[in-house]
Amino acid sequence: MQPYTDRLRQLRAVLAARSLDGFVVPLTDEHMSEYVGAYAQRLAWLTGFGGSAGTAAVLADTSRGKGAAIFTDGRYTLQVREQVDGADWDYVDVPATSVADWLVAHVGEGDVIGYDPWLHTRAWAEATHTRLQAERAASLVPVTDNPIDAVWTDRPRPSVAPMTVYDDPAAGRSSAEKRADIADWLQQERADAVVLTALDSIAWLLNVRGGDVAHTPVTRGYAVVNADGTTDLFVAPEKVDDRLRQHLGNAVRVHGYDELPTGLTGLAGKRVAVDPERAADAISSRLQEAGATILPARDPVVLAKAIKHPAETAGHRAASIRDGAALTRFLHWAEATLPGGGETELSAAAKLLALREETGLHRDSSFSTISATGAHGASPHYHVTEESNAPIEPGQLFLIDSGAQYVDGTTDVTRVVPIGEPSAEMRDRFTRVLKGHIAIATAVFPDGASGAQIDGFARRPLWEAGLDFAHGTGHGIGSFLAVHEGPQRIAQPNYPGGASLEPLRAGMMLSNEPGYYKAGEYGIRIENLVLIVPREIAGGDPDRQMLGFETLTWAPIERTLIDPALLTADERAWLDAYHAQVLATLGPVLAGETRGWLAAKCAPV
Amino acid sequence: MQPYTDRLRQLRAVLAARSLDGFVVPLTDEHMSEYVGAYAQRLAWLTGFGGSAGTAAVLADTSRGKGAAIFTDGRYTLQVREQVDGADWDYVDVPATSVADWLVAHVGEGDVIGYDPWLHTRAWAEATHTRLQAERAASLVPVTDNPIDAVWTDRPRPSVAPMTVYDDPAAGRSSAEKRADIADWLQQERADAVVLTALDSIAWLLNVRGGDVAHTPVTRGYAVVNADGTTDLFVAPEKVDDRLRQHLGNAVRVHGYDELPTGLTGLAGKRVAVDPERAADAISSRLQEAGATILPARDPVVLAKAIKHPAETAGHRAASIRDGAALTRFLHWAEATLPGGGETELSAAAKLLALREETGLHRDSSFSTISATGAHGASPHYHVTEESNAPIEPGQLFLIDSGAQYVDGTTDVTRVVPIGEPSAEMRDRFTRVLKGHIAIATAVFPDGASGAQIDGFARRPLWEAGLDFAHGTGHGIGSFLAVHEGPQRIAQPNYPGGASLEPLRAGMMLSNEPGYYKAGEYGIRIENLVLIVPREIAGGDPDRQMLGFETLTWAPIERTLIDPALLTADERAWLDAYHAQVLATLGPVLAGETRGWLAAKCAPV
Repeated sequence: MQPYTDRLRQLRAVLAARSLDGFVVPLTDEHMSEYVGAYAQRLAWLTGFGGSAGTAAVLADTSRGKGAAIFTDGRYTLQVREQVDGADWDYVDVPATSVADWLVAHVGEGDVIGYDPWLHTRAWAEATHTRLQAERAASLVPVTDNPIDAVWTDRPRPSVAPMTVYDDPAAGRSSAEKRADIADWLQQERADAVVLTALDSIAWLLNVRGGDVAHTPVTRGYAVVNADGTTDLFVAPEKVDDRLRQHLGNAVRVHGYDELPTGLTGLAGKRVAVDPERAADAISSRLQEAGATILPARDPVVLAKAIKHPAETAGHRAASIRDGAALTRFLHWAEATLPGGGETELSAAAKLLALREETGLHRDSSFSTISATGAHGASPHYHVTEESNAPIEPGQLFLIDSGAQYVDGTTDVTRVVPIGEPSAEMRDRFTRVLKGHIAIATAVFPDGASGAQIDGFARRPLWEAGLDFAHGTGHGIGSFLAVHEGPQRIAQPNYPGGASLEPLRAGMMLSNEPGYYKAGEYGIRIENLVLIVPREIAGGDPDRQMLGFETLTWAPIERTLIDPALLTADERAWLDAYHAQVLATLGPVLAGETRGWLAAKCAPV
Repeated sequence: MQPYTDRLRQLRAVLAARSLDGFVVPLTDEHMSEYVGAYAQRLAWLTGFGGSAGTAAVLADTSRGKGAAIFTDGRYTLQVREQVDGADWDYVDVPATSVADWLVAHVGEGDVIGYDPWLHTRAWAEATHTRLQAERAASLVPVTDNPIDAVWTDRPRPSVAPMTVYDDPAAGRSSAEKRADIADWLQQERADAVVLTALDSIAWLLNVRGGDVAHTPVTRGYAVVNADGTTDLFVAPEKVDDRLRQHLGNAVRVHGYDELPTGLTGLAGKRVAVDPERAADAISSRLQEAGATILPARDPVVLAKAIKHPAETAGHRAASIRDGAALTRFLHWAEATLPGGGETELSAAAKLLALREETGLHRDSSFSTISATGAHGASPHYHVTEESNAPIEPGQLFLIDSGAQYVDGTTDVTRVVPIGEPSAEMRDRFTRVLKGHIAIATAVFPDGASGAQIDGFARRPLWEAGLDFAHGTGHGIGSFLAVHEGPQRIAQPNYPGGASLEPLRAGMMLSNEPGYYKAGEYGIRIENLVLIVPREIAGGDPDRQMLGFETLTWAPIERTLIDPALLTADERAWLDAYHAQVLATLGPVLAGETRGWLAAKCAPV
């Protein structure tokens, strides 16, 4: 861990030179992205932490303690302790203790703590500053050059991947149509323009894709949509070729990525919508300096993008068959191979990737595959590395949570493979997770009900056994875009950000992924994607539109892990019908041997 | 409706004389009470509206419309139209349109709208003023003398009912012990005092009861609890006799009700906790004028009171048996009598009241009985009056939702009686409501889960048939206190005030009351009270405390309304076990004829 200790020391030297008493290091980019380019991996460079969410805070003064803390949520409690040196860093669990809580407890009176205004929202900066002021007479100040970058001498350059055209037929609607809707929204909000900063919003709105960020096919850029529907796009000029320029048309003016501040200055005197949860603090500051009026409002693309066009769901259905066939080939291989030994988490993940790549249409994995055997499965977001890579051994449960980016759709699916005979406890737990999965898959609910209102359905069979799982039940998903997409979510009502309170609407896609985790022993999760569809119910209240889920993911759910005695007749009927549909859907696209294996896996339980 | 038109005209004359362009008339008292004394029934006096929740807004200027609106929620959509003259008043549905929304749309530029600062919270006043300022350059101003009182010449005097001792053994803990806990809380919050304004908080804290408010045995008063646990009680002096003074002890200083402002002035320089949801705006204003620092914090009694002491639950169990026996006698009478005709909603309610009074321990009804036959049942909060009183006729469902105040407990129970043969649809709906009721009664959930997380369990059987009900599933309840008691609630996550997000804890009591309402035809609701109890589950995660419900209410659930084919085996088992327990509990305290009837009603389905 020596390099990290050195880096921390170097960072402190920069802080001292700049008269800063501390600095906050988030894991995000200028677009508040979930997955970020290598150039923005400052948290990992500084600390060694490899998880997908976290923050660090570093103080110059180490006389009162370590003067450095890394903040992670329950998903990374184990991982952070393995990857980050406890001699240098305090481990802090969020949300129990926030960054602001820790700062208030650790900074000195009157301290000046820096933050990079391109990597935090204004809401975060204001709330944190207010607390530091009130409780420590300290302040949080924006710093123009990120101090990490001064010491990270070999920091990678941002990606130069091109921006590419996403054909209108695949998107279902042209960019001009989509921009006309945004223009209508601006009129309704009495605003002159909206600044779009979320990379997937820009990709969706302009019907473009890119390759600047791991796992998500987007391009770094900003877009300002004006009330007449014309749009100013800020993107590295070398990413835009003639074909793309033609696709964008005259109503989209292309500027350099670094010209955004100038573009914002040009909004002087205008009323400009900015998403307080998605836009960097620096954007609001620039607009205010320019004399623009800020209208805080959710990025209008967010909801429009979440409600899929039939062309997008059709694409997803095709991708699901392709992906399900690859996964089924993997499961067949796994059942035949893993009990014999010699395979590891990494080799198994590589096998699945190879099978997906054999489809010829695989562009990327949609997230870092969770290939977790035995106790590793008990970390819901375990990420296998060369260091952690474990052999897959008899008696374990092997959990694989993975997804693919195909040009027609983004997939995300989790299955569990028992290595040999599972224990009675494993079967009990797996069956309860399955009951929760079925309870979501079969749920009927009023149009506009929220994910929080149905989340309990997934947990009840576990609660009845004194068990639970410490993550949400389902997240939204993009169409050849982000694997985790807002605004909707199935989760407990106090899920951060309020996503589980978002009204559910027909056309939204979600994952359905209850789980169970026994620390030190095994993890279970059963994940399919679902589409929200209208449900017409004879005899129901005529003025009450009901919705339900159509399952989109095709792969067998391991029958040896199911205790049929725990299933109700309705649950058994769902499982048998699902398996019959898996066979009917995938059978025709599978080779004979795998087809025969699948038929046996899909027989009624 | 002539008197109401006159009163509205007189009020406008007062507004004109005081240079006010409008005035807001809520239905509450100086303590934000749900039920208020006759002296505070300004909304009913002005409009004729007899519901339990509503607000009116009156403008001086009628040139742009009626210049008057009455705001009610979905419970009162029908009732308000029957009771309030649409020629004088706009009917406005909240929360779809708030009072602020209506004012912004109807006041003139620069108008000055008055409000009584003793009848609104500060949060409401600030939010409403801010909107009027921003959108109409108008203002909301506190007025010292309520303009209604200037024209309501025969306004009743406040009640002079005595404050009485609630014995420590019934409460489980002495007032001194409770006040010591509040003192600990004040130290923890670094506050010098807390102003208690909720009448039931004061009653609970001091182990006293009263008779100033309909249905809730409380006394009008205020209490200021200091950091040393001593308390200043502000109450009409004639309500305090020697026995009560002795009970209160030297640590409770008694002042006149009207001396509160002086008492608040005495808090100059102190840090004083005030509940922003429960304290009148006038209290915060007075504290600020006095130079006190306000700490906005929830009344610390609210949570302490919600978690019942074993002595309180023991009292409730005794009250439940007594109340269940009275209700069972009523249900026996109803089945024998109602199909024969000649009875009405009023006469049936009177019969039930008489049976409760025969117990000799009945002090009051815990709310205005909902005795609703046929289409009246479709209004969940229907209140029978001489005008609305309907005969109970064959083919109807008769719904009776009622409760009693006994000195050992507060009850609340709903049953439905079919008059003759119910239709197949009625049985289907009733059985679905029952399935939802059972899903709550049998729910197991983690300690700290919220009511919002289980609310869906009650709705799923209705959702599956394209149905729902437009109210919460359960409310908290007091111990010989308010029938609707916070902070917890079982309801959808966006239930106003956030009550459904309150963590559920062992010892809390709730109602379990799903329903179904078919407009113009009938209403169904099945309501029992439940106590949250720990559930020890063998094999569960050892660090996960689970909770469940113990049903506290005993009365048969009408078997001819149940379609057993719609019940699962587990649901049938719950119903049969519940009925067996009803019989075992009530049988011994019922006379032979009713006991035999009950045995038949409680046989396995």
